[in-house]
Amino acid sequence: MKRTKKAVKVAAKEAKKPGRKPGRKPASVMNMVIAQSGGPSMVINQSLVGAVLEARKSAKIGKILGARHGILGILGNDYIDLRKPTEKKLEAIAETPSSALGSCRRKPDAADCKAIFEEFRKLHVGFFFYIGGNDSADAARIVAEEAEKAGYPLVVYHIPKTIDNDLRSCDHTPGFGSAARFVASAIRGDDLDNRALEGVKIDIIMGRDAGFLTAASALARVRKDDGPHLIYLPEVPFSEKKFIKDVQEVMKKYGRCVCAVSEGIRGKDGVPMGAKLGSGEKDSHGNVQMSGSGALGDALAKILKEKAKIKRVRADTFGYLQRSFPGIASKVDQEEGRAAGAAAVKAALKGELTKGTIAIVRAKGKKYKVAFAPVPIQNAAKYTRSVPPEYIAKSGNDVTKAFIKYAAPIVGELPFCEVF
Amino acid sequence: MKRTKKAVKVAAKEAKKPGRKPGRKPASVMNMVIAQSGGPSMVINQSLVGAVLEARKSAKIGKILGARHGILGILGNDYIDLRKPTEKKLEAIAETPSSALGSCRRKPDAADCKAIFEEFRKLHVGFFFYIGGNDSADAARIVAEEAEKAGYPLVVYHIPKTIDNDLRSCDHTPGFGSAARFVASAIRGDDLDNRALEGVKIDIIMGRDAGFLTAASALARVRKDDGPHLIYLPEVPFSEKKFIKDVQEVMKKYGRCVCAVSEGIRGKDGVPMGAKLGSGEKDSHGNVQMSGSGALGDALAKILKEKAKIKRVRADTFGYLQRSFPGIASKVDQEEGRAAGAAAVKAALKGELTKGTIAIVRAKGKKYKVAFAPVPIQNAAKYTRSVPPEYIAKSGNDVTKAFIKYAAPIVGELPFCEVF
Repeated sequence: MKRTKKAVKVAAKEAKKPGRKPGRKPASVMNMVIAQSGGPSMVINQSLVGAVLEARKSAKIGKILGARHGILGILGNDYIDLRKPTEKKLEAIAETPSSALGSCRRKPDAADCKAIFEEFRKLHVGFFFYIGGNDSADAARIVAEEAEKAGYPLVVYHIPKTIDNDLRSCDHTPGFGSAARFVASAIRGDDLDNRALEGVKIDIIMGRDAGFLTAASALARVRKDDGPHLIYLPEVPFSEKKFIKDVQEVMKKYGRCVCAVSEGIRGKDGVPMGAKLGSGEKDSHGNVQMSGSGALGDALAKILKEKAKIKRVRADTFGYLQRSFPGIASKVDQEEGRAAGAAAVKAALKGELTKGTIAIVRAKGKKYKVAFAPVPIQNAAKYTRSVPPEYIAKSGNDVTKAFIKYAAPIVGELPFCEVF
Repeated sequence: MKRTKKAVKVAAKEAKKPGRKPGRKPASVMNMVIAQSGGPSMVINQSLVGAVLEARKSAKIGKILGARHGILGILGNDYIDLRKPTEKKLEAIAETPSSALGSCRRKPDAADCKAIFEEFRKLHVGFFFYIGGNDSADAARIVAEEAEKAGYPLVVYHIPKTIDNDLRSCDHTPGFGSAARFVASAIRGDDLDNRALEGVKIDIIMGRDAGFLTAASALARVRKDDGPHLIYLPEVPFSEKKFIKDVQEVMKKYGRCVCAVSEGIRGKDGVPMGAKLGSGEKDSHGNVQMSGSGALGDALAKILKEKAKIKRVRADTFGYLQRSFPGIASKVDQEEGRAAGAAAVKAALKGELTKGTIAIVRAKGKKYKVAFAPVPIQNAAKYTRSVPPEYIAKSGNDVTKAFIKYAAPIVGELPFCEVF
């Protein structure tokens, strides 16, 4: 124990020496770079801090460099020395939503990778950690594969994060539980608002391709007549005609209707309605902008007003608040975000995989429990997973009990609300 | 003390007797009707519960009837017996956002009033409490004045509530502190999001005519470069040209920009931009619908993209979440909401005024303290107050320190966020 502590101190001291040239430090001590990428979340900083605190324990890691704005920070030589902040400061960062290092949506090409390895060579970087979703995992995979091709020895680990919950490698992803908690809380409050001033309320919820976050709105329900009364996921082809009929039926039953609608809903042609209405702006991974606009909600409200002749129809688009609202994160999500970051550093140091991601595996049985296991990075990269059929009600406008059972422990208890 | 308790029991028992005819109970025991009106808030149920618990203490009040959906409940004979719920249930209702009795936006006309007095006569109603904003105060004023004309003895009290904070009779209104807390928290998180993925972020905040809630976004700031960097209130004529220039200046300084914009901003012509873009839908008080649509945010984003050639511009409209999000209410606001309800019942029982509202008066001096005083109902009715000039920065795109000093104790501490 004492020896390890001493070794860590030596490594840290060694790493801090300025102007050290390649080859002048023991080969067993390498520096690490960590960065954040893609959309922020309420717990992505937990993963960062989990990784940094784990790295600080190791004698094999020298400098701990946080690149600002993902790989853009590496390309622009813009780092934060993550050995400097006190644990108290790191804990405050961990509690803070959004990506403390800054983020980006850059897909690295061959030229980027070449520049990255030049930079890494200069800085003696042997470990690279990239926290993000499937696009970020793909970016990390590209860096890892290009490093192999270039003969640059680099251990690359992707650390899972996405409020969309759509990584194929994870039972669920850090960030989802807290965003789902925001969504379910908001819908619970909004349902009460809709009780007070009746009519139709449409709430547009994030999730480009996967409807998990929209599905989580169902956790708001306590009583039989609680909203959301209708839930529309991108996994079920959206029909305007059925939507009108669904709403009319709920209106007949309750005199009011709360709809949770994914920003990614699409008709039979597979093209998201939000993308058709939006600016058409794309990031370098080819994703069309859908958030940060109220167009879809307004379009659906217009349909109900004009075609179904419903008088009071309102639409809200929850937007970026879903991923960055402070003070309401799910505790389970926070703990798991932290653990995923630590697990990546542990796995990288073990060296079983040179390019990995951390899978989150849920134990079978009644008690909620998860394990963190290193798996090949390909398992998380590029392709996403959808809400599986067993979580979607046959009606196509709701979720099943199995989904509630799946999501509830990740989200935690919501503020209790009473009605007369 | 014991005698009072006994008298209360007698009154309660008396009031519960079915089929009692006018004149068969002691003239000193009258029944009361309480209702909620206008937009919900996070603490309007605190006022309801404050009034009910105070009424339960009195020997002069028999039945305590909650009319559902404001005066619509009186017109439709739709009541909840508010002597029935346990204190535990009432406390849970008090913690719950939105209007537990339901709400409406009806302005009563002479026919409504006639029907109301017929109903009140049948039910032996001597006290009428109406919780709401300026339009609700005006509705209560109309009922009170018509009652006088009709010779119906009725004590009418308006209980202040509005997230807009625009009642002339109050230093600030119950509901504002909690909505402001939501807004400031959301902006604090959104500013962190904007740090991570840079560009311009526009957040549209409620407040038809008064910019208090938008102004409260300034409470999000801790560091010098924290957003909101620009604040636009309805009190300052909005100029597209100045808006573009303001944003460009902030972008030059920080490489990013968070704008807090009131839904009520208007040009020199005085017509709200949101009303021009919206559906044109009006309530019976003549208010044009502005919330429940993302049109204004999208329009402002388009201006910046097209005319200022800024690439990444996003807009969120906070919408109904501002008034109904559960679990994040300001404690001071909750306490004051409760106290305002109780004060109205106390004042009504004292009988100094037959048509009153509760003014909230802030004590001078360093320590935050308020008093609740009955004043004539006209003081709250119809006309609103704007953000006073001393709270608006000379630049026209920010608030002053005096505003921060004014608003901070009402909103309470926000979740702390750390940055590198």
